[in-house]
Amino acid sequence: MKRTLIVRIPELVGEKVKIAGWINVRRDHGKLIFIDLRDRSGVIQIVIIPDNEEAYQRAREVRDEYVIEVEGLVKKRPGGQSTEKLETSSVEIEVEKMKIISRVEGELSFEVSSKKLDVNIQTLLDNRNLSLRNKRVNDIFKIYSQILKSYNDVMRENDFLEIKSPKILSTASEGGANFFKMEYFQGEAFLAQSPQFYKQAGVGAFERVFEIGTVFRAEPHFTTRHVNEYTSFDAEMGFIESYADIMKQLTQVMKRIIRDIQKNCASELAEYESELFVPDEFPKIKLTEALEILKKEFGKEMEGIDIDPEGERLIGEWAKKTYNSDFIFLTHYPSSIRPFYTMPSADPQYTESFDLIFKGVEIATGGQRIHDYNQLVASIQSHGLKLDDFKHYLEIFKLGIPPHGGWGLGSERIVQKVLGIKNIKEVILFPRDVKRLTP
Amino acid sequence: MKRTLIVRIPELVGEKVKIAGWINVRRDHGKLIFIDLRDRSGVIQIVIIPDNEEAYQRAREVRDEYVIEVEGLVKKRPGGQSTEKLETSSVEIEVEKMKIISRVEGELSFEVSSKKLDVNIQTLLDNRNLSLRNKRVNDIFKIYSQILKSYNDVMRENDFLEIKSPKILSTASEGGANFFKMEYFQGEAFLAQSPQFYKQAGVGAFERVFEIGTVFRAEPHFTTRHVNEYTSFDAEMGFIESYADIMKQLTQVMKRIIRDIQKNCASELAEYESELFVPDEFPKIKLTEALEILKKEFGKEMEGIDIDPEGERLIGEWAKKTYNSDFIFLTHYPSSIRPFYTMPSADPQYTESFDLIFKGVEIATGGQRIHDYNQLVASIQSHGLKLDDFKHYLEIFKLGIPPHGGWGLGSERIVQKVLGIKNIKEVILFPRDVKRLTP
Repeated sequence: MKRTLIVRIPELVGEKVKIAGWINVRRDHGKLIFIDLRDRSGVIQIVIIPDNEEAYQRAREVRDEYVIEVEGLVKKRPGGQSTEKLETSSVEIEVEKMKIISRVEGELSFEVSSKKLDVNIQTLLDNRNLSLRNKRVNDIFKIYSQILKSYNDVMRENDFLEIKSPKILSTASEGGANFFKMEYFQGEAFLAQSPQFYKQAGVGAFERVFEIGTVFRAEPHFTTRHVNEYTSFDAEMGFIESYADIMKQLTQVMKRIIRDIQKNCASELAEYESELFVPDEFPKIKLTEALEILKKEFGKEMEGIDIDPEGERLIGEWAKKTYNSDFIFLTHYPSSIRPFYTMPSADPQYTESFDLIFKGVEIATGGQRIHDYNQLVASIQSHGLKLDDFKHYLEIFKLGIPPHGGWGLGSERIVQKVLGIKNIKEVILFPRDVKRLTP
Repeated sequence: MKRTLIVRIPELVGEKVKIAGWINVRRDHGKLIFIDLRDRSGVIQIVIIPDNEEAYQRAREVRDEYVIEVEGLVKKRPGGQSTEKLETSSVEIEVEKMKIISRVEGELSFEVSSKKLDVNIQTLLDNRNLSLRNKRVNDIFKIYSQILKSYNDVMRENDFLEIKSPKILSTASEGGANFFKMEYFQGEAFLAQSPQFYKQAGVGAFERVFEIGTVFRAEPHFTTRHVNEYTSFDAEMGFIESYADIMKQLTQVMKRIIRDIQKNCASELAEYESELFVPDEFPKIKLTEALEILKKEFGKEMEGIDIDPEGERLIGEWAKKTYNSDFIFLTHYPSSIRPFYTMPSADPQYTESFDLIFKGVEIATGGQRIHDYNQLVASIQSHGLKLDDFKHYLEIFKLGIPPHGGWGLGSERIVQKVLGIKNIKEVILFPRDVKRLTP
């Protein structure tokens, strides 16, 4: 007999089936043993009666998270026995045969069948293999997988080519801070902080490129928003009129991602009581305007023309209140705090660049880049950087490059903010921070 | 006026259009100037007549690879003037306005408009930004992007969840050779050679997972098949009956990838004169049988039970001749040359594992893994490895793990062999080898 997925069982009343999965929880009720069995598709109640001696013997032996395979009859459920509402609660399986496939060694650190794991983040991550089995935790990665797909789909539909750029670099470019250094045969190398230079090269070859890839940041700080390794959604597009084209494309991307998860992950969103406010166009204000709003509406004054995480949170609140929008673009960051390759505005103190704030957190940075070779050379010099460090990068711009721009979008921050999860490490399978390299 | 992509132009005879792109080649013909203009969608001939003084002046100035924007009238083409057949050859554009968007600095190292670049691999890669603009080179990455999509699609359709696993590891596991070492804040770390341990963890949480990710191999050799950083297509699936389930799933994946590129990249395949022989089921023979065939049919004797690249090439030939198949599975590799986590066969000298050979090159390695905690502990010890190095890995198997297996598939080798390209470095945008860390 072939295995049937649990989600299919309610359609099979009166039939014999084989299912396999993990024991979510076992309940002994008088002489009957009830087990909630879990596979990748769902959870179902199975019943073992004492008359079936062999199966009953096995059922008495099993504990939470044992892997078992059972054959049995699908029956309409009398009702009243379940302690928790299951999607399959109209049926149960009366077990005829039971096989133990894999056992648990030692004690489990916590009960994974509980609705909400009541453990701190260290325990959650130290016991990652166990915590991932909790439905609420597991759901995060179903949504994340959908986000990966949506980004891929929407970029391709807009004629972007998917590329994979190198992660090992010869020099720590873009200023040099926060790069991980590695041994590379007889010499040394650095891990890429972003595919920035390579996606710009991609414009020269393919006009429009996107990449879903790992980026590495040797940032020594502990926050709920930072990790040292994450998956970046990058894009770069040529023949733009201005940075507004980039914001327009990114708006389409975000709307598509949100629409897809609302459509395909509705039950998971409901579980997290996620509420999303996504207007057709996202509000856009200049950074300097945002700073005025912070001062006027929240009495918060920033030093210089820059915004901090608290400021982003407040601007997010303001956008929600004012535009009923979870998203807001802040534009025209000063050149002094943007990388040398950022296109200056008509007033060269500012740049044709933006951050996208989602529910009070910056999830993307982007803008137009300098495409003229001589302007780029001048910008490298005026930023106090050495031309020699950008020798290979500059080659790109000797070959005729159209006006272009793009973004880097933190994929994990999307799911974090969609679900309202406090710490970004909770939405990464096996996160890495200054102190965490395991499991 | 909005920009029109070149591929659309033949439908617009009699209309005024704006197009933009790179100068593929300029030809001066008597008083007329002809330019083949290239954008991401194709190439078209544009004509500039001397009467249009302003445009004519600009046209005399431009050189190969300049980026220009032109407005003009789409006309049926008189014929006879084109030196090369273009997809758009039924029409041409009579230029009314021309704008130079971006210039070339210095001399180009070679002519990118030629059908086949006649340069050696070092020149090809040293001038990567230029060589990628050659159509034949560019096509490689269109096919590669399609392969990325096909793998993503087919895995999802088979209910695999997409995951992203960490690339920074605390220990050099799996034996320890060929790992890159890096500085990690106050300590050190290693770059992942494969997502092996994490995808197995994924089985415990999601049953079926796949990953498209960078892997790093500190292999010091120079061959046409190796690079030090590449993109691996990984998969792992739980609740299998045997390693045969893995081969079946992988067969489906490869058939899907080939079918998709045949359907969506027909002209690119034709350009490379690619011929593909993909039977419905791939032949499978034991490695020991393969060694007998090598001896009997090719007079080649291997030392011990193993096969070398030359042997794989000959077995590929044999599979083609015998089964009219570009694919062949070699199965039951000896335990001594497989990693400790490989499931032993009934005869424990051998393993429930396989390599997939495509056109004479190994493109995938896979098989069933050990899922029982105690068996795994014994296998680590009998392989002479230290249990302590696998502490975190072993945790996975304390929690109840079903029988499972998977594969690692070299994504670049697929496109390399599909197109019959000699060196794998040609199919990677910016490849990394022992001596190459740039561009």
